[in-house]
Amino acid sequence: MVMMLLAVLQANASVMDVDANLRTIDDAARRAAQAGAGLLLTPELFPVGYAPLRLDAELDPATLPGVRERLAGIARQHRIGLVYSLPAVAKVPQQGADDDAARPTHAASAWHITATLLDATGHEVLNYAKVHLFGPEEHKAFVAAEEPPAVVDFGGIRTSMLICYDVEFPEAVRAAATRGAELLLVPTALSSGFDNVPQVLIRARALESQLNVAYANHSGHEDVYNFLGGSVVAGPDGSLLAAAGEGPALLFAEVGTETVKAAREEVPYLRERRPELYREWQS
Amino acid sequence: MVMMLLAVLQANASVMDVDANLRTIDDAARRAAQAGAGLLLTPELFPVGYAPLRLDAELDPATLPGVRERLAGIARQHRIGLVYSLPAVAKVPQQGADDDAARPTHAASAWHITATLLDATGHEVLNYAKVHLFGPEEHKAFVAAEEPPAVVDFGGIRTSMLICYDVEFPEAVRAAATRGAELLLVPTALSSGFDNVPQVLIRARALESQLNVAYANHSGHEDVYNFLGGSVVAGPDGSLLAAAGEGPALLFAEVGTETVKAAREEVPYLRERRPELYREWQS
Repeated sequence: MVMMLLAVLQANASVMDVDANLRTIDDAARRAAQAGAGLLLTPELFPVGYAPLRLDAELDPATLPGVRERLAGIARQHRIGLVYSLPAVAKVPQQGADDDAARPTHAASAWHITATLLDATGHEVLNYAKVHLFGPEEHKAFVAAEEPPAVVDFGGIRTSMLICYDVEFPEAVRAAATRGAELLLVPTALSSGFDNVPQVLIRARALESQLNVAYANHSGHEDVYNFLGGSVVAGPDGSLLAAAGEGPALLFAEVGTETVKAAREEVPYLRERRPELYREWQS
Repeated sequence: MVMMLLAVLQANASVMDVDANLRTIDDAARRAAQAGAGLLLTPELFPVGYAPLRLDAELDPATLPGVRERLAGIARQHRIGLVYSLPAVAKVPQQGADDDAARPTHAASAWHITATLLDATGHEVLNYAKVHLFGPEEHKAFVAAEEPPAVVDFGGIRTSMLICYDVEFPEAVRAAATRGAELLLVPTALSSGFDNVPQVLIRARALESQLNVAYANHSGHEDVYNFLGGSVVAGPDGSLLAAAGEGPALLFAEVGTETVKAAREEVPYLRERRPELYREWQS
């Protein structure tokens, strides 16, 4: 039986003020580590602020390796795992890798929205790039990725990541769960008014695929956006293990493998799926 | 804009007492029609009671055409649409229709669990057979079906059906939604202790596929089962339009096409799915 104390940062970022945002992350990492947490999850694009069009116009890719090194330093210094989200220069899709022959060639400066999981030594152990982009600004500033969420063993817990809108699609969480995920870490940037996303969809994702789901949101205003807050951690029985209000918060929840195992034994959703039929039904 | 008042029966059935159960349905149909409802949804296997092993041992298939005719008479008499659920003799799967060559041949007496939608003249307009069987008794007494949920126009609302455990799988609801469903009718037999199914999963199914979902459960004890009650109707924004407690109830909710259209315009989940990737990710 493996248990880990997970910390979830909900905070307000300053757009394009990396120093201020890294201070917020550093402070949260220090408090989380002091409380005994093994991992800190932070919101989508938090180190640069959530502002797709401004990031696309103003962010210099040459600055990002330095930001990543400072984030690794925060993990190392506090000896805590860390999930952060940043833009990353998109790889051009492989020619002939899919059947859409008319796919446009992306400019070299095209961005993905990505998430990175660092271990407590600051080493990168998992990367993910967002597959489902939300709204006209994201579609303008970013390129959607196409790789499924990978799974890595993190301190004995099989861990995966999605980003924001991705997790609203049950298919994306299934892809992580069928690859063995027991813990799904989701940086997000969810606007006010969408309370049913954390309160209904996140709990449903946890319950239907029987894993722990942590969902870390921004709070307050950034750029033209007003964020909901409302970060949550849901357990594999669909219960809320922790939930934030609308302001800044550092949430803590115990997540582990035992509740995952128990849920999957009680109702074997993953085993009783009928993927061969679902494929037929689609075609 | 099309609106319909939907009635949902939550009640206790008497196992193998068809006369008593049809009286309960007849009474509900009369009250629903008087209230102006266009359709009455009833729970899984309600006319015979929920008791898989007893049904398998005791139910004579020769009696079922008569039961169906009486149910059609109830719809006709009260001039109301009706969804009922009964066992039906399973069709033997077509040879060579799938790649499982070792599939056993089913005995002639094998049963599906089915649902039937009648219009207000008692005419059958839609049939569905349960694809996901729940628990050892259902697996012993019934054979899982393999056809996707079909969709029919019912008074201007594109309508589909699933049964009980089916709806806990997001893939099954997607199959109905991608075929155009705006209203999903779900007879169920859900035991006590599974409150998160109606309160979390049903709301999530409605929200993520942006359709109305009505979920009609048994109440009280039948055979060895103790049912939750807790029937619900959820709207395409994930809100609860109606919800029952644990005892007998006749729920009413207005369901229509306008809220479906509005939800799908606000957040285009169905259009922004990436089914070609999900297929790749599975293989």
